[in-house]
Amino acid sequence: MSNDLLIADLAGKARNASITLRGSSIESRRAAIHAIAGALESNVDEILAANQEDMNRERSAGLSESLLDRLELTNKRITGIVESNRKVASLPDPLGRILKSGTLPNGLKQNLVTVPFGVVGMIYEARPNVTIDASVILLMSGNAALLRGSATARYSNEILVKVMKNALTKTSISPEVIQLIQSDDRDTVRALLHARGKVDLVIPRGSASLIRKVVDEALVPTIETGAGVCHVYIDQYANLERAIPIIVNSKTHRPSVCNAAETLLVHSAISDDFLAKALHELSSRGVKLNCDAQSLKVAKRNKIAASMASSESWGTEYGTLEMNIAFVSNVDEAIEHINKFGTQHTEAIVSEDEPTIERFISLSDCAAVMVNTSTRFTDGEEMGFGAEIGISNQKLHARGPMGLEAMTTTTWIVRGEGQIRE
Amino acid sequence: MSNDLLIADLAGKARNASITLRGSSIESRRAAIHAIAGALESNVDEILAANQEDMNRERSAGLSESLLDRLELTNKRITGIVESNRKVASLPDPLGRILKSGTLPNGLKQNLVTVPFGVVGMIYEARPNVTIDASVILLMSGNAALLRGSATARYSNEILVKVMKNALTKTSISPEVIQLIQSDDRDTVRALLHARGKVDLVIPRGSASLIRKVVDEALVPTIETGAGVCHVYIDQYANLERAIPIIVNSKTHRPSVCNAAETLLVHSAISDDFLAKALHELSSRGVKLNCDAQSLKVAKRNKIAASMASSESWGTEYGTLEMNIAFVSNVDEAIEHINKFGTQHTEAIVSEDEPTIERFISLSDCAAVMVNTSTRFTDGEEMGFGAEIGISNQKLHARGPMGLEAMTTTTWIVRGEGQIRE
Repeated sequence: MSNDLLIADLAGKARNASITLRGSSIESRRAAIHAIAGALESNVDEILAANQEDMNRERSAGLSESLLDRLELTNKRITGIVESNRKVASLPDPLGRILKSGTLPNGLKQNLVTVPFGVVGMIYEARPNVTIDASVILLMSGNAALLRGSATARYSNEILVKVMKNALTKTSISPEVIQLIQSDDRDTVRALLHARGKVDLVIPRGSASLIRKVVDEALVPTIETGAGVCHVYIDQYANLERAIPIIVNSKTHRPSVCNAAETLLVHSAISDDFLAKALHELSSRGVKLNCDAQSLKVAKRNKIAASMASSESWGTEYGTLEMNIAFVSNVDEAIEHINKFGTQHTEAIVSEDEPTIERFISLSDCAAVMVNTSTRFTDGEEMGFGAEIGISNQKLHARGPMGLEAMTTTTWIVRGEGQIRE
Repeated sequence: MSNDLLIADLAGKARNASITLRGSSIESRRAAIHAIAGALESNVDEILAANQEDMNRERSAGLSESLLDRLELTNKRITGIVESNRKVASLPDPLGRILKSGTLPNGLKQNLVTVPFGVVGMIYEARPNVTIDASVILLMSGNAALLRGSATARYSNEILVKVMKNALTKTSISPEVIQLIQSDDRDTVRALLHARGKVDLVIPRGSASLIRKVVDEALVPTIETGAGVCHVYIDQYANLERAIPIIVNSKTHRPSVCNAAETLLVHSAISDDFLAKALHELSSRGVKLNCDAQSLKVAKRNKIAASMASSESWGTEYGTLEMNIAFVSNVDEAIEHINKFGTQHTEAIVSEDEPTIERFISLSDCAAVMVNTSTRFTDGEEMGFGAEIGISNQKLHARGPMGLEAMTTTTWIVRGEGQIRE
């Protein structure tokens, strides 16, 4: 079967299942998620065995340790996933929420209500936890899931989908709401991105090159996730005691994720002593420092290892313990730098001066502005969403962390008594 | 200059202007719109003269009467446009609205607030009124406008943009917030659709072929507008007195627009007398009828002119006085037909039976469901938005009529006192 036919077939099954799913009660969706969670627990040995096969094969093939870490499932990780699934089931129903309501002068009553997208495709890399998380979040929001995981996790994904579908057979929700694209062929990604009218939305989660491919090729609606070149700006009116933990946390707490900071901007009125202390804290945690000319002098004077930043440094998402440092002469220059090199993800300011904070907020064009706190807080769990299917890096539809609500669209329901337009 | 450079240049000017626009007060945006409205009134003679040049040239070139009608500006039309501009200025500020607000367990205070997109491109056909309406709606919502109108309206667009920019020079808003792409070259459309990172959103308004081109070529985020194959379903429990005016209004009130109905579905339990009366009312208003076998019999028996529908009829957006007629055996079959041939725009049901209505609503996957009223009410003005920049035909971001709110995105503002992630 050609990949276009394969996708059409799976999307068709998902579509049929989605039609009954959109009419299902919240109780039945919750029961289905609990059934899935229970089945994952009961089948943990089989799941871990399949995952070990993937791990062994990929380790032999030379997959990097950081990717192997993403691929690996453990008892503890499965427990965490299952707990988070049950938390999703406990959240309020995202469907049927009335967002707007009113009666028009002609007597028409109109409500804007939330409804599911229908069929949502996911394209993602190694991590098999996405197979479960996405299925559960999409099920809770009334959407059928069309999953295109990576060949790296093929056995893991197969067993997880088998366990979840099997669990659904004992519920009132059709197992067909979860569809796995079981093919290593990269062309299935293209076919999915071209499945116009068959798939309502595709969300890519993974590397910058995957996101770029999706943007270039997609004929279906997509939500970009991902790239984060985030900045921390230390203003002249900063509380310097607070500033250093915020810098260190933003960079080093989990450098591989998109809300980690890549660049530190420091107001030039701030003492060199502060910068020296900040650089020392970073350097002592293994952070490689790429400095502008002025901050490099401070580093050298204080015998802190640092290099000159290159022209590429400022726009690079390192994802590792590496950070750019620059002086700026005021908040406007900080914003100018951010608008030039940032990716409109998360920008932090440390300042006690309200007008400066307001100016930073009003000129920042990004998903989240952090005032006197770490960039790491742009996160669905931290923000209280209870679940996260990804962090949108676009302005359309959803911006920043996406939970259940982001997986819904709307319908106007207009009720009349025979009104017509004059 | 290549078209890519041309677009980069105009988008750059728009971007710079948008940065100050996003920080502007609602008072200054309102004053700017009033200045534009006043200037349009003062320059009406010059505007009409330029429009007449376009009309004369296009009439000689053989443009159809319906397109000439769209192209034409008159004193009355300008008055209407200016009135609608002033109405936009009177609407609540769409920016800075707090959509969500909360304090997290760690003490972080977070608000989700509305902010502008930045630079919004418009690609549209003959209608010069879009040049004004789009500029004003985008200005009110804090966005710079990058306008790519049609060569058909070139003099009209040039004078309108000149008058609007000139008006802005006397206000605190930069005239650079409006940029006209003055080129007939079709390749400027491609360049605009490829201007990734330079344009935040592009909205096409026009024919199905334009929308298709946008979907195929765009690398920038877009909102599809337009295609409407809308249905009216007359249920067995319909109030038949109400049904006929709803059918006639949905089809004939303004057949060229996307919310006009193309297909009438009738429950097979309804008497042939009702259908005969409905077909007579349509036929007597010049509606060409394309019937399924059973409804064709009714037409013939009652000596009403009608043809057999072809396989293409059901999915065609006529935009003219032409309508498809079919019998269905129940609401589920009606929905099945709609899901097969509809474009997820507007679907109407005429019924007095609440469970049937609920089933129709829950299974319809469209922007608007009309219960006992005309499909023509899917309209920003009618729905009380006060302005409409287009009707979204997609599920992402905005669905159905788009007013000021749809031209905003969001930013999370998170305020802390030094919190970091543990």
